Amino acid sequence: MYPAIFEALVNNFRKLPGVGLKTAERYAFECLKWNQEDTDDFIKNITNAKNQLRPCVVCGNLAEHDKCDICSDGQRDQTIICVVETIKDVVAMEKTQEYHGVYHVLNGVISTSKGIMPDDLNINSLIERINEDTKEIIIATNPTVEGETTALYLSKLLEKKAVTVTRIAHGLPMGGHLDYADELTLIKAIEGRKQIGQ
Amino acid sequence: MYPAIFEALVNNFRKLPGVGLKTAERYAFECLKWNQEDTDDFIKNITNAKNQLRPCVVCGNLAEHDKCDICSDGQRDQTIICVVETIKDVVAMEKTQEYHGVYHVLNGVISTSKGIMPDDLNINSLIERINEDTKEIIIATNPTVEGETTALYLSKLLEKKAVTVTRIAHGLPMGGHLDYADELTLIKAIEGRKQIGQ
Repeated sequence: MYPAIFEALVNNFRKLPGVGLKTAERYAFECLKWNQEDTDDFIKNITNAKNQLRPCVVCGNLAEHDKCDICSDGQRDQTIICVVETIKDVVAMEKTQEYHGVYHVLNGVISTSKGIMPDDLNINSLIERINEDTKEIIIATNPTVEGETTALYLSKLLEKKAVTVTRIAHGLPMGGHLDYADELTLIKAIEGRKQIGQ
Repeated sequence: MYPAIFEALVNNFRKLPGVGLKTAERYAFECLKWNQEDTDDFIKNITNAKNQLRPCVVCGNLAEHDKCDICSDGQRDQTIICVVETIKDVVAMEKTQEYHGVYHVLNGVISTSKGIMPDDLNINSLIERINEDTKEIIIATNPTVEGETTALYLSKLLEKKAVTVTRIAHGLPMGGHLDYADELTLIKAIEGRKQIGQ
């Protein structure tokens, strides 16, 4: 229906997640409206991103050099490592501005249904980076079935290491209501209760 | 939060219609996963689309050369011109495989609220291409307020020309039901009734 060149561009856009034919066509039409400067900028950024971004050699986070900005930051507390599933989780944690340790990005979770085994994740590199200065490993995989499975696996793996292993808290989110919470969350909220006051 | 190169790519994706920050991040992450071949293909297609695609000099449709495939097609009935709002409307009509005339793409509609005046559309080029062979102009702008306004404007403009001016039919869509139709559509369906049988 469209010229072949246009169809080819539409098919490229269809490779993006959640993009069907109509959306890809909208994107391709929009692309055609961009001026030369914006188009060149887009192409330059794709090329640069592909050529210059890579996983940090220490933690797996997105990096422009061998080590990411966080691992390279002398102000960070290198003795506490927060283990997360993906790079996006690092960004989520960083937005809180409350955590000053470093990270380790597993790049997924153990999932038998998807065929993702421990060797497919950045687990060996986690074990290898633990040294005599490491004090705590926070396991911050998501509180999902696969996240919990991975957390259990990691805790067993880290048993023999001379580090404190902690798991982020599960319970009601801030602003939440008991009558809207699911049962499992409520159970976790009761189980994880902590003493207050005296 | 992310390396500057990544942020730059995210900002490029945010220029696409309907793409917010999170979606742009998803697209940028996906881009990073593409292999070199797919990335090169994407870049090549953007470049080719920008360099080689242009409005057909006759009708405004998407074209790889001066004239689009439809205007260049000797099998098409050049005496009947179907006037549409956008290139996507040409594709929609072509999918029916029932129309064998040619098109004229206005590239929008008259809209006082958006400040789009007749001079901003491909109207002069429509008038100029009418010649002694032209038999019919079908006005196929959308049955919206702006589409109707544009249709009225065009019909008045074409009054003095020796061509038949027609408007696509309004009424219930195929598969539609009277009790689900809006009042205006029903009114149009009654007004546009045609004799059947004898």
